[in-house]
Amino acid sequence: MTRQRIAIIGANGYGGGEVARLLATHPSLEVASYSSRQFEGQAFTAAWPGATDSRTFLDLKAAANAADTVVLALPNGVAMTVAPGLLAEGKQVLDLSADYRLPARDYETWYGAPHANPELAATAVYGLPEINRASVEGAQLVANPGCFVTATALGLLPLARAGLVGPQVIVDGYSGISGAGRNAAGFSFAEVNENVFAYKVAGTHRHTPEMEANLERCGASARVTFTPHVAPYSRGILVTAYVTPTRAVTNTELRDLYAGAYANEPFVRVVDEPPQVKATTGTNRCDVYSRLDERSGVIVVLSALDNLVKGMAGQAIQNLNLMLGCSEAAGLPTWASWP
Amino acid sequence: MTRQRIAIIGANGYGGGEVARLLATHPSLEVASYSSRQFEGQAFTAAWPGATDSRTFLDLKAAANAADTVVLALPNGVAMTVAPGLLAEGKQVLDLSADYRLPARDYETWYGAPHANPELAATAVYGLPEINRASVEGAQLVANPGCFVTATALGLLPLARAGLVGPQVIVDGYSGISGAGRNAAGFSFAEVNENVFAYKVAGTHRHTPEMEANLERCGASARVTFTPHVAPYSRGILVTAYVTPTRAVTNTELRDLYAGAYANEPFVRVVDEPPQVKATTGTNRCDVYSRLDERSGVIVVLSALDNLVKGMAGQAIQNLNLMLGCSEAAGLPTWASWP
Amino acid sequence: MTRQRIAIIGANGYGGGEVARLLATHPSLEVASYSSRQFEGQAFTAAWPGATDSRTFLDLKAAANAADTVVLALPNGVAMTVAPGLLAEGKQVLDLSADYRLPARDYETWYGAPHANPELAATAVYGLPEINRASVEGAQLVANPGCFVTATALGLLPLARAGLVGPQVIVDGYSGISGAGRNAAGFSFAEVNENVFAYKVAGTHRHTPEMEANLERCGASARVTFTPHVAPYSRGILVTAYVTPTRAVTNTELRDLYAGAYANEPFVRVVDEPPQVKATTGTNRCDVYSRLDERSGVIVVLSALDNLVKGMAGQAIQNLNLMLGCSEAAGLPTWASWP
Amino acid sequence: MTRQRIAIIGANGYGGGEVARLLATHPSLEVASYSSRQFEGQAFTAAWPGATDSRTFLDLKAAANAADTVVLALPNGVAMTVAPGLLAEGKQVLDLSADYRLPARDYETWYGAPHANPELAATAVYGLPEINRASVEGAQLVANPGCFVTATALGLLPLARAGLVGPQVIVDGYSGISGAGRNAAGFSFAEVNENVFAYKVAGTHRHTPEMEANLERCGASARVTFTPHVAPYSRGILVTAYVTPTRAVTNTELRDLYAGAYANEPFVRVVDEPPQVKATTGTNRCDVYSRLDERSGVIVVLSALDNLVKGMAGQAIQNLNLMLGCSEAAGLPTWASWP
Repeated sequence: MTRQRIAIIGANGYGGGEVARLLATHPSLEVASYSSRQFEGQAFTAAWPGATDSRTFLDLKAAANAADTVVLALPNGVAMTVAPGLLAEGKQVLDLSADYRLPARDYETWYGAPHANPELAATAVYGLPEINRASVEGAQLVANPGCFVTATALGLLPLARAGLVGPQVIVDGYSGISGAGRNAAGFSFAEVNENVFAYKVAGTHRHTPEMEANLERCGASARVTFTPHVAPYSRGILVTAYVTPTRAVTNTELRDLYAGAYANEPFVRVVDEPPQVKATTGTNRCDVYSRLDERSGVIVVLSALDNLVKGMAGQAIQNLNLMLGCSEAAGLPTWASWP
Repeated sequence: MTRQRIAIIGANGYGGGEVARLLATHPSLEVASYSSRQFEGQAFTAAWPGATDSRTFLDLKAAANAADTVVLALPNGVAMTVAPGLLAEGKQVLDLSADYRLPARDYETWYGAPHANPELAATAVYGLPEINRASVEGAQLVANPGCFVTATALGLLPLARAGLVGPQVIVDGYSGISGAGRNAAGFSFAEVNENVFAYKVAGTHRHTPEMEANLERCGASARVTFTPHVAPYSRGILVTAYVTPTRAVTNTELRDLYAGAYANEPFVRVVDEPPQVKATTGTNRCDVYSRLDERSGVIVVLSALDNLVKGMAGQAIQNLNLMLGCSEAAGLPTWASWP
Repeated sequence: MTRQRIAIIGANGYGGGEVARLLATHPSLEVASYSSRQFEGQAFTAAWPGATDSRTFLDLKAAANAADTVVLALPNGVAMTVAPGLLAEGKQVLDLSADYRLPARDYETWYGAPHANPELAATAVYGLPEINRASVEGAQLVANPGCFVTATALGLLPLARAGLVGPQVIVDGYSGISGAGRNAAGFSFAEVNENVFAYKVAGTHRHTPEMEANLERCGASARVTFTPHVAPYSRGILVTAYVTPTRAVTNTELRDLYAGAYANEPFVRVVDEPPQVKATTGTNRCDVYSRLDERSGVIVVLSALDNLVKGMAGQAIQNLNLMLGCSEAAGLPTWASWP
Repeated sequence: MTRQRIAIIGANGYGGGEVARLLATHPSLEVASYSSRQFEGQAFTAAWPGATDSRTFLDLKAAANAADTVVLALPNGVAMTVAPGLLAEGKQVLDLSADYRLPARDYETWYGAPHANPELAATAVYGLPEINRASVEGAQLVANPGCFVTATALGLLPLARAGLVGPQVIVDGYSGISGAGRNAAGFSFAEVNENVFAYKVAGTHRHTPEMEANLERCGASARVTFTPHVAPYSRGILVTAYVTPTRAVTNTELRDLYAGAYANEPFVRVVDEPPQVKATTGTNRCDVYSRLDERSGVIVVLSALDNLVKGMAGQAIQNLNLMLGCSEAAGLPTWASWP
């Protein structure tokens, strides 16, 4: 089988760089080209000191022309200016940004700007395979979900499908610093180490509607109160979600429910101890844990994943595998190094 | 005024060591003696490489005899074997352990062993000055609260006193590794760095009843669902609490409520941005923040403090100041170094 | 081609665990069995929370019987009690410990105990392929070098082969905490974070004679003054070595010398900027840099690698590849994730 | 005694901020005013989230007018444009920058620009009290040394004074990230954590001539080969220096030499185990250790300090104490918190 070739647009950010790294050992996909505005004409290794690819960054057009499949690793609001043209040329597009994750109206509400192509936003496939697998297969335009959103969705999916999610869901999430992106100011080591803090508190984080939409995709209707935090580590998401169940449940029932929901999922593992972020680092795995607090009647759900892999670039490749007819798990590590 | 002298029993753990460090620059209290089973007869600096006190550790009895006031920095279950004798000799006792924080019956339930002196547990003063100041003044036996508990209580106190706390409270807390104590196994740097995880999930952490008791002290009655986590830093607590208010409130009302509640407290600061753990490190200050999520109607409360200072040794000195007639704020830093 | 099978003895330590992880994606080698005294009978994942292998740990004998090739990941002094029997059964042995790295007499001097089988110590092959490749091919017993030693040897090799190494070499090395092994006490996160210190100062570290022996293998004779340090990170070695050259050299000459020495090495990269440990993490690559200080006439050499990969388990697989007739680079990553 | 008042110019950087923090508890000095170009008119706490001073930043002129003593915490090259005017007004000036540390000719060579007032550079007092105490007392203009330089000087001083320093000295230094200053780009947590690297290698770091000048002040003449590195922590310097002695020495002799040299110094402690950076954090103490490698004949010297205290702001206050007639140790902590 010939290897299918992928262009990575915006390959100097963490998302694009991690897609590149994972494709470097993929059995049936390979990188055709890289683009970067900042690094155009420079060596790929100028942006990525750990990489061993000797090519250089092209401009967007030249990079896109080199492949029939394009990964867009561009800022929110920029991807939507590029995707329509690529699709018109018949290319398949996987978008890492938020541009095609929401209906245009919700996009406007949360991102503060009109959507450039609302009809595309309406037809793009939401690329969370555990919820939406069949739609991703062969799709032309796939919107890759956010990292907090993926962890939250995989944690709550079994409860939502079982009709157990009450009307108020608390999502308390922690991210490593890479979640702020590569060019984020304000995250100097000296000021972040030995520090922990929340941001976008009390209903102001843009990923909230995506969380609620995923609950709806699984049959639940709830308001999410989401508090994102950062802690002093580079990679990984830990979400602690609190659900008041719609009826009485037991811990035995919860265990069976989760075990059943994920028995055949290659990238979700139901664990018996609270999940550790480090046990997922570098992998496309999400570890999930759920327990009823018998005193209070609240269900506590924990989910951990690597925000740059299952939360971004690994999920992108999982989606590419489905879009391009490869085995869904191809090229995606599940064994995390330790330490 | 002559300086009052304090014996520190168990001065080789983080709590006792931090009390020693803070007393070293206290204007009117001073350390009389140190005891340690593990280090008895050795130099104080053998246990504390950053210290500059040239004395040696004594045995418990010799150390206690050197002072009229004793700080017990002993494991849970051990302090209660020592306190009665010291009190009988007329000494004032400040206990850092959990032994006198709960009524004996609750102690048995949560700590899995009968209490050695239930009557003392019933009469000991709970040493959270912001709730209980008058009782601490001149008290003979004061139980110093836990670190997660202090952060939670100071975050929720204004809501509880205003009758706004609904019957279910979510408390999601993160601690640095020092919270596990000095001899905790399983926290090797190599396995904890780049890691985050929860422990004692779903109603199993022993500090839960202490949190509920503090709400009661402030007039509220609620079940607390508490999830403690650890993240890769040494010092500090960040608590994110979620309260469904008993009636509609506005953010303006919340701001006024918190500003009023803490206007005269020397060690609680109401902040306008989500509090940062690092801004409290080394100080006896707790930074508190509260906002209504207008979409969901849930109040999000954030509180940050240094688990070894306001969460332990600094609070101990605040209590000692009250017990011994010193100015409450004496010897307690409020300005955190940065970075 | 049938996959060759490897037994890993002592698979609960960092070395054995990392060999297991790397073999999990190796194209022609695979793990036959795991042994562990501590975890015998338990699931492999009980020791390795990030692993996805569902087998259990066996006892040493059962594990060794399952394969013709054995990796010994045992403490110093223990490997030598096991290797002779395995060799007598015709197995090939790769030893991660220090037991076969030195002649028996030097072993005694530096490890403080007589060697159990001096004749084997004399005939074992020292497994640093960049120095010793031909001897490793097909060898029966290979001693895997230490991590500081590998970084030092690869940094100095070009100078040594060119006759440029003067009689005194300074080696100043920093290791992450995983270098202390998995069961090391005294490396609690709380005491190691925000800390840096040296240990085994002034000619007392056991890897010193191995460094001097490698210089000799490359034709140089020098005393090494080695200072190991630890810094607060999990993985990686950075060695800064100082050589007073035996004759005047220029930076141009140094660049050519290093470029030539490593032109065909798959796992050594000569870099143009001082190497970063993070650019090697998870890979079998060593990055090397060398510059003359023109004011002082001293050559400064920097070399970086991942202590658990090129400094241990990756090098083990590089050696296994050579011992077993696989492609030397098979199964060994060179592209480091970032961040 | 009335408290003397100090203006801090450039109080939004790490140096100025730390001077402010230390002065907040000084018994006889106090801050009169703060200036900052970036934060002028804003609250001091806008720059310093851990501070509890309610004043605002003024402009330079207004701040300087408020005091007879001025601390300049300005970038290199800027301090020299301000100092002459302040001195002309009769103020005493303590400069944290490099502007007055070197003779003008050396400044030009290493900083690549002519000095604006060479005659002041010639008469400014170099403020390393352990070398230069008498000159600092009452001085009008004092240049505060750099952090790597202070650690190196205090490590080598006893050897230099004893005539033991050979012509080549190796200085291998590690700094935490705060050493890069507050506005340093390229030190994002995500890229620095789990990373270690050198910079300004092979005779290119500007602090090299200052190190050589200090050796000369102590009677030694040597070339210094200095390699600075950064490791993933916020505060602290560890210097490992290598000296080939001019004659044979023993370890006993070294111990006596160091003990004697520092017997009366309030801020230098000779330690029996390799010093730990963490044991100096937040203090004005430098811990020093020296051992002969008996195999190689090389003396290994280790010195640790907090780069923002003894390496900057604490030393500034030590100098201010001497300039203004206070007790040299006033207001300077020596007991480091742990952890």
